[in-house]
Amino acid sequence: MKGLTWQKTTTGVWHSKAGEPSSLSPLAWMKQEPKQEALQRLGEAELPFDLEEVRLDRVGKMLLLSFPLTETEAIYGTGLQFMRMNQRGRTKYLRVNSDPKQDTGETHAPVPFFVTDRGYGVLIDTSRIVTVHCGSTVHIEDNRREAVLDRNTDKGWKATPLSSRIEVRLPDEGANIYVFSGPSVASVVSRYNLFCGGGTLPPKWGLGFWHRVPKLYSDKEAVAEAQEFRERGIPCDVIGLEPGWHSRSYPVTYEWARERFADPAGFVRELAEQGFQVNLWEHPYVSPDAEIYEPLKPLSGSHAVWGGLAPDYTLEDAQALYVNQHEEEHVRIGVSGYKLDECDGSELTNNSWMFPAHASFPSGTDGEQMRQMYGLLFQKMTTDLYRKHNRRTYGLVRASNAAASTLPYVLYSDLYDHKQFVRAMCNASFSGILWTPEVRKAGSSEEWVRRMQAVCFSPMAMLNAWGDGTKPWSFPEVEPIIRHYIELRMRLLPYLYTAFARYRFEGLPPFRAMPMAFDNATEYRAAAALKSLGEGEVLNTTDAAYGKQKVREWDDQFLMGDDLLVAPVFAGEHERDVLLPPGVWYGFETGERFEGGRIVHVQAPLERIPIFVREGAVIPTMPVRPRAPKAGEQTPLEWLHFGTVPGRGMLYDDDGVSFDYERGNSVWQRAEVRAGADGALECVIEEETAGANTASSYSSTTWKLGLTKLG
Amino acid sequence: MKGLTWQKTTTGVWHSKAGEPSSLSPLAWMKQEPKQEALQRLGEAELPFDLEEVRLDRVGKMLLLSFPLTETEAIYGTGLQFMRMNQRGRTKYLRVNSDPKQDTGETHAPVPFFVTDRGYGVLIDTSRIVTVHCGSTVHIEDNRREAVLDRNTDKGWKATPLSSRIEVRLPDEGANIYVFSGPSVASVVSRYNLFCGGGTLPPKWGLGFWHRVPKLYSDKEAVAEAQEFRERGIPCDVIGLEPGWHSRSYPVTYEWARERFADPAGFVRELAEQGFQVNLWEHPYVSPDAEIYEPLKPLSGSHAVWGGLAPDYTLEDAQALYVNQHEEEHVRIGVSGYKLDECDGSELTNNSWMFPAHASFPSGTDGEQMRQMYGLLFQKMTTDLYRKHNRRTYGLVRASNAAASTLPYVLYSDLYDHKQFVRAMCNASFSGILWTPEVRKAGSSEEWVRRMQAVCFSPMAMLNAWGDGTKPWSFPEVEPIIRHYIELRMRLLPYLYTAFARYRFEGLPPFRAMPMAFDNATEYRAAAALKSLGEGEVLNTTDAAYGKQKVREWDDQFLMGDDLLVAPVFAGEHERDVLLPPGVWYGFETGERFEGGRIVHVQAPLERIPIFVREGAVIPTMPVRPRAPKAGEQTPLEWLHFGTVPGRGMLYDDDGVSFDYERGNSVWQRAEVRAGADGALECVIEEETAGANTASSYSSTTWKLGLTKLG
Repeated sequence: MKGLTWQKTTTGVWHSKAGEPSSLSPLAWMKQEPKQEALQRLGEAELPFDLEEVRLDRVGKMLLLSFPLTETEAIYGTGLQFMRMNQRGRTKYLRVNSDPKQDTGETHAPVPFFVTDRGYGVLIDTSRIVTVHCGSTVHIEDNRREAVLDRNTDKGWKATPLSSRIEVRLPDEGANIYVFSGPSVASVVSRYNLFCGGGTLPPKWGLGFWHRVPKLYSDKEAVAEAQEFRERGIPCDVIGLEPGWHSRSYPVTYEWARERFADPAGFVRELAEQGFQVNLWEHPYVSPDAEIYEPLKPLSGSHAVWGGLAPDYTLEDAQALYVNQHEEEHVRIGVSGYKLDECDGSELTNNSWMFPAHASFPSGTDGEQMRQMYGLLFQKMTTDLYRKHNRRTYGLVRASNAAASTLPYVLYSDLYDHKQFVRAMCNASFSGILWTPEVRKAGSSEEWVRRMQAVCFSPMAMLNAWGDGTKPWSFPEVEPIIRHYIELRMRLLPYLYTAFARYRFEGLPPFRAMPMAFDNATEYRAAAALKSLGEGEVLNTTDAAYGKQKVREWDDQFLMGDDLLVAPVFAGEHERDVLLPPGVWYGFETGERFEGGRIVHVQAPLERIPIFVREGAVIPTMPVRPRAPKAGEQTPLEWLHFGTVPGRGMLYDDDGVSFDYERGNSVWQRAEVRAGADGALECVIEEETAGANTASSYSSTTWKLGLTKLG
Repeated sequence: MKGLTWQKTTTGVWHSKAGEPSSLSPLAWMKQEPKQEALQRLGEAELPFDLEEVRLDRVGKMLLLSFPLTETEAIYGTGLQFMRMNQRGRTKYLRVNSDPKQDTGETHAPVPFFVTDRGYGVLIDTSRIVTVHCGSTVHIEDNRREAVLDRNTDKGWKATPLSSRIEVRLPDEGANIYVFSGPSVASVVSRYNLFCGGGTLPPKWGLGFWHRVPKLYSDKEAVAEAQEFRERGIPCDVIGLEPGWHSRSYPVTYEWARERFADPAGFVRELAEQGFQVNLWEHPYVSPDAEIYEPLKPLSGSHAVWGGLAPDYTLEDAQALYVNQHEEEHVRIGVSGYKLDECDGSELTNNSWMFPAHASFPSGTDGEQMRQMYGLLFQKMTTDLYRKHNRRTYGLVRASNAAASTLPYVLYSDLYDHKQFVRAMCNASFSGILWTPEVRKAGSSEEWVRRMQAVCFSPMAMLNAWGDGTKPWSFPEVEPIIRHYIELRMRLLPYLYTAFARYRFEGLPPFRAMPMAFDNATEYRAAAALKSLGEGEVLNTTDAAYGKQKVREWDDQFLMGDDLLVAPVFAGEHERDVLLPPGVWYGFETGERFEGGRIVHVQAPLERIPIFVREGAVIPTMPVRPRAPKAGEQTPLEWLHFGTVPGRGMLYDDDGVSFDYERGNSVWQRAEVRAGADGALECVIEEETAGANTASSYSSTTWKLGLTKLG
């Protein structure tokens, strides 16, 4: 069939169109302008192949897009995947599914964007399902007879022989296709995020500690639980309410249950006075008891969910009903945001928890499209609502898709495997989405510690006690450890906020999987093949990681910002291998010195999650506080420099709550540590940019130089 | 859109066509004539609704067929489902999948045929995927406000509110639709099987005991293991060879591995002399080392599987290459049949174990169709090959679809949950397919016994030791129990063979789920609501089966033939509830008398699987033998009559190996037990029909009257 026609749309991004795609798609819906200046700063980069090598074929009604694939190429992304990081050899069926227990590609956020370590990425912009065959298919003409082994007698037999193409099954109607150049994995991902409008910048309070109270708590119970955080001196910024705040739920009304919340405005005000934000759980399906039910009914889909309406929020009239109700009942009284649940139901595994694919909606959208888009629709409606009030929001969502980089929402799941949770953090970073390995409960104090340690180094540090009533002090014997890490998160807030600013303005994710910590695949593979031997250790050449053993994916550790590397430990483990990028690293809390560019082995007693800091890093920190600073509130700033060599750190600041930063009301500071006249290190703070009306959040600035561990 | 036009095609069967379906479909491919005479004997029956109530709607490109659904209606079928029996409230996505670990509808044999206890059935005849929403969808106009409860506070809350339609998503291109009347569930299923050509009648040896040897066994090892059965006096009819008999496997050659089988013909002959049939494992993907590779290559699909060809067996030339090779290398030397593995791979969960949906085949068939049809293609090719030689075959297959009733193949799986295995037996009986809960291994002698007991009451009593090397005597402490049940199966062979004859000629499955053991849903529900109380037992009205407790499905027991009810017990259990159809029943091995039409409770010590026999039943049996009788071989026959009332039993017989029975060479006998002149019971044997050339298999006939348990 006729080949594809490519057009360069911006720096390092090419576009083509296959078939006649529906006008409803993530990119089209989000309407975000690419961050052109930042894209230009990222610069041009060539694709690793000629676009002529991209093929479009038709098999019956099916449209097949394919890309060349080299022998060792790794493939990352395709959204919130739980089962593996390198998708090479797998087929990813990218359908929204709330219950992704098998490695089919289905997930809460099946983003049809992938990036390979050859240094390019591909976005399929569509509201329909895409299937990406990541080298899992072999054309018969590629068959190499010498590679066809006998499964019974040849130990080298593999189910997946070498494939020479990535094959993408597009929706039959077609799709818009975007190809992104690198050269590195990190630059491909940054380019994708900038193309989608840049990453999200949460309000400062969003990066504090979150606590969700049990589902049927009353106003008094919620206030009492919040107060206990203050009494115990454990930082907390957000109290989340679960289904019981609705007058009816499953389906929901979005109206307050007056028997539990007699005075919603007073409740929100009381918590605000103690420095807490309120976040409200909801889902899309509108109860017949809701005031907006009758007006929404003609604007809703053909099928009910639990007896509730599934509104067609591609329609402006439907949006207006939802937005006005939310504005009046929640936003006006100070509610800070939402937890958007159940927008990811699967008609197959959780029957009746979602409308079917054949549901029809008044706009002409069908159920398949609406399911793929529903999470995006809710995120965008609520984000725009807060933006109208010049307030930033930060919330939770159960479904997402492509072009979500700008959205201030963090994904979560009812699945609860801790290793999968950490892997999902790594994988989210390839796809312009955020993920929280929220803590709900634990079978032991050890598991509790390991989960709480990890969540403190994630986009949302949250204890979700909706079903279990747990609290940070639920395991008293380990409470000091929990407290320590919640406090450490608070201390690192200036650093973490700056990492999010880089996401916002440069597209670089604040949490990054290991392939994004290396300049290229060669460097990554070289480090992953080098293992430091501890005292007394002997290299096991029979089944070491680089021997016959299954190749380790390093999907259980990640960068937080540029200079901290976090390597979570799971219940039952007390030591682990860590892959360090090149250079010298220090144990952030131990001071132990490591040569990077290789695998190192560290001890991890229960009280410690292994964190590493890059030599030369200059980390902005602040004192522990009960909650994040409000706009205009001031706190001391302390820069921490590690090691014996010069370096630099960056600090971003603004009012922390509004969009005034978009009008220049923000500041970037650079802390430059260099050898002074006497040869000793000294620190110089330089303001790189500062808006006229930027009130500094920092009352004083100090620094510590030459640290080997956190002071 | 335009409604459907219905035509009556035969007694109690109506046809309509939606859209413009592909000419490739299960019914079209199988080319079986409906058994018209038997359908007429089954008689006319009205549908429980007017065909005008069946609707066809279009949502975008999607075609939706829907049927009225009453409040309490149960829905059975949709093929080899493992997770539940009544599919009401579930959505079944009927795609072939080798790894059906979640309840999505995907399975080895996703038959798009369902039957409801309102007394009708529906077949969607298509080579594509069908999705059946079994009351899992609720249209907004059906929403009943009073039924919309609060999940948090109303205990009666249900995820799936009452639905008023069964919605079937057809392939976008359309499909042929057949509706079958009842009036009972059993008569709907019989009608479906007769419409598809009648059930299969295996050779007698197929109903003996099967043993598959480890995958790399040589000829000598296989012969030695077979001899051990004879030495130990444990009946066995079939020895199965696993991958190692191929010169190459994964992909395969279909050629003997000469290093393990130097003289295949001699090997098969040697086993035949000892009364063993040989069955050969294979799969569809042809190795480059196979002689038929080069000629098959232009007749194969676009994609390789493990480096092998996926031939397009919708093409006669491709069939001829496969059939000729098999005829020459296997059938000619006496091989009795095949185990057709790996024709059910899923591109999603087992990547690369199947060609993708977008694969293209020379006939114009695409990968989606070929995957749905592949199991049928292999079953039909091999069945026709044996028929050409006037020999019956009986084998194993991993994938099937609709219109498979005539095929002499039994499904199996790599999944291994024992309860699911028994449930699959029940579910298979609704869909014109057979299933074996084969035994592979066990974690304890208790599990071993429970699995071996159950498999002896199934369409194929098989120990599959390919991976584990187990043997019937692997757990010596329980060997007598194993031996007892293998022997009991042999004793019951005349009864079981007759049950299969009813399947062949009347469409009634030899193994039947409980809804087929009752005349109608009212009778079934009444029995399931009645529980006999044992001595000292008190009715628990709080959470008894008919109280708030989850409704028990009775998917763990079944009829074998008309008069035996088998209720397997699973490791860890030593007693169980059993649902008995109306009438009086006896414990087949205990003699305990039960009033049926209710739930009874029985003890099940390890040495006993609960079996029940209907009062008045007359069961034909024969003495234990090392193997099933060959054609013309004679054995004594003994009729066993149970209870104190008159009754009757049937016996079918023929040569047991050929298709001569289709030309009248068969006999039906009726054993009539009635009150004689003196009031005592007496037995009269009547030949109902007998072909001219039917040599009797039975050297003598005796009977026992008034038994209460197996003598």
